[in-house]
Formats: sequence, C-alpha cells, structure tokens
Amino acid sequence: MSLDISKITSPLLLLDENICKRNIKKMREKALSKNLKLYPHFKTHQSREVGTWCIDSGIDGIAVSSLKMAKYFADAGGYNDITVSFPVNIREIDLINELAKKTSLTLLVTEEYSAKVLAKKLQSPVNIFIEVDATYHRSGLRTDQTVKIEQILQSIESVAMMKLRGFYIHPGDSYHAPTLQEKVTIHNAALETLKWMKLKYGNEITECRLGDTPNCSLMENFHGVDSIGPGNYAFYDYVQTQIGSCGIEDIAVCLATPVVAFNRNRNEVIVHGGAVHLSKDFLINEQGQKSFGLVVNINENGWSRPIPSAYVKSLSQEHGIIEMDNSLIENLQAGDLLGILPVHSCLTADAMKQYCCVDGKIADHLEGRLPY
Amino acid sequence: MSLDISKITSPLLLLDENICKRNIKKMREKALSKNLKLYPHFKTHQSREVGTWCIDSGIDGIAVSSLKMAKYFADAGGYNDITVSFPVNIREIDLINELAKKTSLTLLVTEEYSAKVLAKKLQSPVNIFIEVDATYHRSGLRTDQTVKIEQILQSIESVAMMKLRGFYIHPGDSYHAPTLQEKVTIHNAALETLKWMKLKYGNEITECRLGDTPNCSLMENFHGVDSIGPGNYAFYDYVQTQIGSCGIEDIAVCLATPVVAFNRNRNEVIVHGGAVHLSKDFLINEQGQKSFGLVVNINENGWSRPIPSAYVKSLSQEHGIIEMDNSLIENLQAGDLLGILPVHSCLTADAMKQYCCVDGKIADHLEGRLPY
Repeated sequence: MSLDISKITSPLLLLDENICKRNIKKMREKALSKNLKLYPHFKTHQSREVGTWCIDSGIDGIAVSSLKMAKYFADAGGYNDITVSFPVNIREIDLINELAKKTSLTLLVTEEYSAKVLAKKLQSPVNIFIEVDATYHRSGLRTDQTVKIEQILQSIESVAMMKLRGFYIHPGDSYHAPTLQEKVTIHNAALETLKWMKLKYGNEITECRLGDTPNCSLMENFHGVDSIGPGNYAFYDYVQTQIGSCGIEDIAVCLATPVVAFNRNRNEVIVHGGAVHLSKDFLINEQGQKSFGLVVNINENGWSRPIPSAYVKSLSQEHGIIEMDNSLIENLQAGDLLGILPVHSCLTADAMKQYCCVDGKIADHLEGRLPY
Repeated sequence: MSLDISKITSPLLLLDENICKRNIKKMREKALSKNLKLYPHFKTHQSREVGTWCIDSGIDGIAVSSLKMAKYFADAGGYNDITVSFPVNIREIDLINELAKKTSLTLLVTEEYSAKVLAKKLQSPVNIFIEVDATYHRSGLRTDQTVKIEQILQSIESVAMMKLRGFYIHPGDSYHAPTLQEKVTIHNAALETLKWMKLKYGNEITECRLGDTPNCSLMENFHGVDSIGPGNYAFYDYVQTQIGSCGIEDIAVCLATPVVAFNRNRNEVIVHGGAVHLSKDFLINEQGQKSFGLVVNINENGWSRPIPSAYVKSLSQEHGIIEMDNSLIENLQAGDLLGILPVHSCLTADAMKQYCCVDGKIADHLEGRLPY
C-alpha cells in the first residue's frame, strides 16, 4: 500500500513507519550494547500506535511529560513502568493516586514541599526520581543544594508510599553546544553529577538516568548510567541533523502542504502550512538564514531528499513562505504539494495531533482531533 | 458564578467573557461609526461560543483562515456570509463545492491557475476577493502585476459561478512599524492601494476590505474602505499592547499554570505551561528581555494586573520558566497557580483548543480536544 497523494487536500503530517521503526530499533540496540535500560520518552509522538512499535522492539517502560500522557499510555496498556519526566505537579494529586493504583508510576521531585504533600496524600506506592540540574538551568536541583536534597530524601523515607528510585538528569545544553567536543564535556559532566549523587545519597540499586536525544545518539561512554530516556529520536528532526544526532534520511515525519500562491519576483512559494501546523521553532541554517524547515517533494512513497536552496523563510498562523530557486518555482503550480521537514518534530507532532503513515493508515495521538 | 481555582489542576486557558464581549462591542461600534461593515476574523478564537457573542452584537458575516474553519462555522449556523481570508487551495475543491452549496462563500484568489480551476470545477456560486499585497510581502498581488490580475478577472467573468466581490488587503507591516506615524503611513498606503484597484478594476459596488487588528484598532481614517476583517481584537494579547492597539486590561485570555519548582538562586519559578500551551512566539520587552508572556496572579474573578518585574523567560515543550523578584518568589509554593498573558493569543488559543470562562463554563473550539 502506498500514499494516495491525490487524497491530501490540506496540511497533513506524514509519518514514515520504516524510518521511525529503524530509529526505534537503532536506539534499542545501542542501549542493549551499552547495557543501558531504554525508557523512550513518548512526549515526541504521543501516539498509541507508535508506542506499539516500541513495544514490538522490546520496550516495556516509558517516560512521558505529563500526568495526562501517563494516563493515556496506562490506559493503552503494554507498559509496566511509566515515569513522568517533569517536576511533579501536586495539584494533580487525585490523578496521581488514580494512576498509581493501576500502574507502576515514577514521579520527578525537586521541591521539598511537593515531597511533603506526596508523603501526606499518596494512597498507592510511587517511585521517585530526584531531578538534578545539569547546569542546563531548566529544572532540577544543583548538587550543592544539600539541605533541600536531604529534606526530600527524608520525606521519601518517612512513608511507605514513596521509594527513591534514583536520579534523573536532562543535559539539554547538548542542544546548543556548537562542537562535538563541547557536547562530550557536557555529557561527561552529567555523568559525573549522576555518579556524585549516587555515591552521596544512593546505594547499589539506585538508578541513574540520562534524558536527552543528542547525547544518547552521539555518545559512546555511559559509565555510571543505568538507564536512558530520549524521546525525539523516534522521529528526529532538522535541529537534530544540525546537532549531528542523525542524518536527514532519519527524519520520520514530514508536513505535506498544498501550494496556494507564488511571489515569483521574490522567489517565494506560499503554502498552506503555518505556525498552527509546524510550531514557531526555527534555526539558523548553513547559509545564515532563519529557517522554519527543510523543503522536500512529496511522492507516493513518502518524500524526497531536501530540495537544494529551498527553505521555509517565515510562518504566520496558516501561511508558510518558502524561498527557492526560481527555476524550480517555474515547475510548480498552485495545487501542487510540497513537504516540510520540521525544525522541532515534538512541537509539530503536538500541533498536528494526528499522523498519516506513508502506507495511508492513520496513527492516533493523545489529543486526537475531533472530526473537523 | 465565579472560577473555582481549586479545580484547576493542569494548564488551562481562561477566557474573560466580559473583556471579550467588551472588545467585540467596541470594534463593532467603531465600525458602525465609520460606516464600515465588520466581518470579524474567527481564526483567533475558532469557537462557536465566542461566535454567538459576536452574533449577539449584531455580526452576520465573518472571515476564517481555512475551509475547515468555514465548515465548522457554517455548520454552527447564524452566519450568512463567510470569507476564507487565505489564498484558495484548489486541492479542496470538493469541500468548496460542498460549502458553496449551503452558505454564501467568498474565496481569496491570487493565482490565475487557481481562478481557472475554480472556473472549471465550481458547482455553486462563490464570491471572489482578489488579495492585494500591502508591501507586507506575505501573500497578495502587487498592483503592477496587471497581466496576472487581468487573467484572474477574465476567469471570474468567464463563468456564472464566480463573481468579483472586491479587493482584500492585510497590511501586516502594522505589526512591526515602530511608531504610530509609521503605522499611519502603512495604513494610508493600504487605503491608496485599495482605491487604485477599485478605480482600475472595479465599479461602485466593488468591496474594499482591510484586514489587520492594529490598524482597525488604532486608525481613524478609513476613506475608501467598505469593510474590515480584524480577528485578534476579540482577545487581544501582549503583542497588541506593545503595538498600542489595546491596554493590558483588554487582554481576554490567560493561561493558568501550576507552579512546580523554583530556582531561587536564579529568581526563577518553573510552571507547567510550555510551548505546547502558549506557542513559541516571543517579543522583546521594555527591559530588552526576550519575553514569552506577562505574568499575573489567578483569582476567583479571573486574573490580576501583571506582576511587576515578572516575565516568561523561556519555554520548552511543557516547562515555562518565569523570572521574578525573589521577594515575590518567597510567597510562592509548589502547587500555587500563576497566569500567563500570551504574546500571541491566536496561537495560544489554537494550541489549547478549549476555554474555561471565568464563570466556570467551558467554551468550545474548532478542534476541541478529545477527552484526554
């Protein structure tokens, strides 16, 4: 079965099942070879369907970024270990209790007050990761916040409903380090931080988990790491090619967009595909241009390699402006399709909330659209 | 009835009905006073409920940004004139024919090929706006593209199914002009362009429509304009306050976000509220900081004025990082709520796909979420 292009009438997120399964398999094999347990982060695809491809590859535990997502995958079944890799939101205590009753739930804690509330209100056992800041400066505790860490540990130890699972780190700086050497430095610092936390506060069964796709893709040394939780690798994206985590041929999703107009004197093609489809993330490409995506041709097997010289120059709510060589624009007509490889596939997937596999099947999404 | 804050457990988009209705009424009154017909652009709210507030204020015709949205509001009923203010996508000819059969549909045309396809395939009558470029360089024809314009006009005249309604312009440069004087210059140039098009290609019943919220909010001279189609004014947002289109008290939507963690040494509060809730649009605030939103307190009547010194510093998929004075952070606890006034309410509304009115009622959205 192949893609019936004539049926694509409006912006549609294509998913190449073969590329996605290859990405899933490759990370699984790398994890096995490094003796790491892989807990894929499902925030990228948020899809039961893609989840089953992970289960088929041998995955039994996952990470998610919200309680809502944990519930969706708990209801889907097939996972015996779900970690919410986001600082626990104690306003959701009822949902936490509901989920903890029926699934093995792990929460991230960085606040002593949250730990205390959990100690008081938990009705079923949960595991706890303490998140450690990898100098990324998003969330997580610094290793020198010893008082806070010890207070959290006391809360955990004070009740049978909480058990320290280990330490979690997301060295998100790996996204911005310009050279491989700098990425290695960030990665090694994260390994040292995890080791230090385990030595000071853990024991031999304390789990140390590393979270980001660039390091999980690029690094070879995982000394002291027990498990990894990358997410983006299932789809990869333009940013990850720029980082070096993958090649362009590894990007598994592509937004199909109808061509609606031209500004030939400015070498521009206007497509129906804007910020509500792709999100507003951009990068600076090799030519120094602000780019909201790579441009490809759509065919019955999926999509082509990127069209040289073409890039998504700007996005408004529904408009995408693509710049490309006029010689190529001459071959285009209103009503043709162009594809856009997203800058950040997690946000594009979240915006589109549905996938059309290149074999024509529809894959679901946590917040699947109502029929409009 | 007021807002039961204790029931807010996860990111929720609050809508202040009173502010929204006041914005709707004010633009309607301005349009009446200027003898302009107002066709509000519903791409901002995409909500049947908000639509009925517009109907109650006397609105009977609207603009939308996609065929899908046209269908949603046509099905909702109450509108006898729907314009899709986006260059027509001829791949959607079947949906165009379906809608044109049951509603008075107006399409935007900028391509002679699209006009030809419409001439050949339309089964019910539609009206046509030719979009004119306001040197904004998004979509629309330049006034010097006379051959293209004349070919489009020929296609329109060639069949009974198409009727030239008039000329549409969206001077989006108004969003970026730094001074009021420059906005006036852009606005006046748009008026001149419309007049020129009408004089050259139209007649006394040709409709000239102007599309953007800043000019519709700020300008007083609409000489030669017959109708206006602003959208954002129903909600307004942080960008519009920076432009001067509205005051902060006119912003009608606010994202309620649970506080999950603190980086007190960096004066940061971490909330559950990220790019998948707010979108990634940002602006440079008066302090020269990149800001993803203003920060307010949530109360049972809605929200407060912005907290001085506080701003949304960065967003990742689910994390929002708010910087504020440490003296204020000392009064906060994990589990508290903070509100964020969005930079770009259209994108935030599209991301959230649901509203909780400050009286507790839920208002719908075109792509309303499935129960998760």
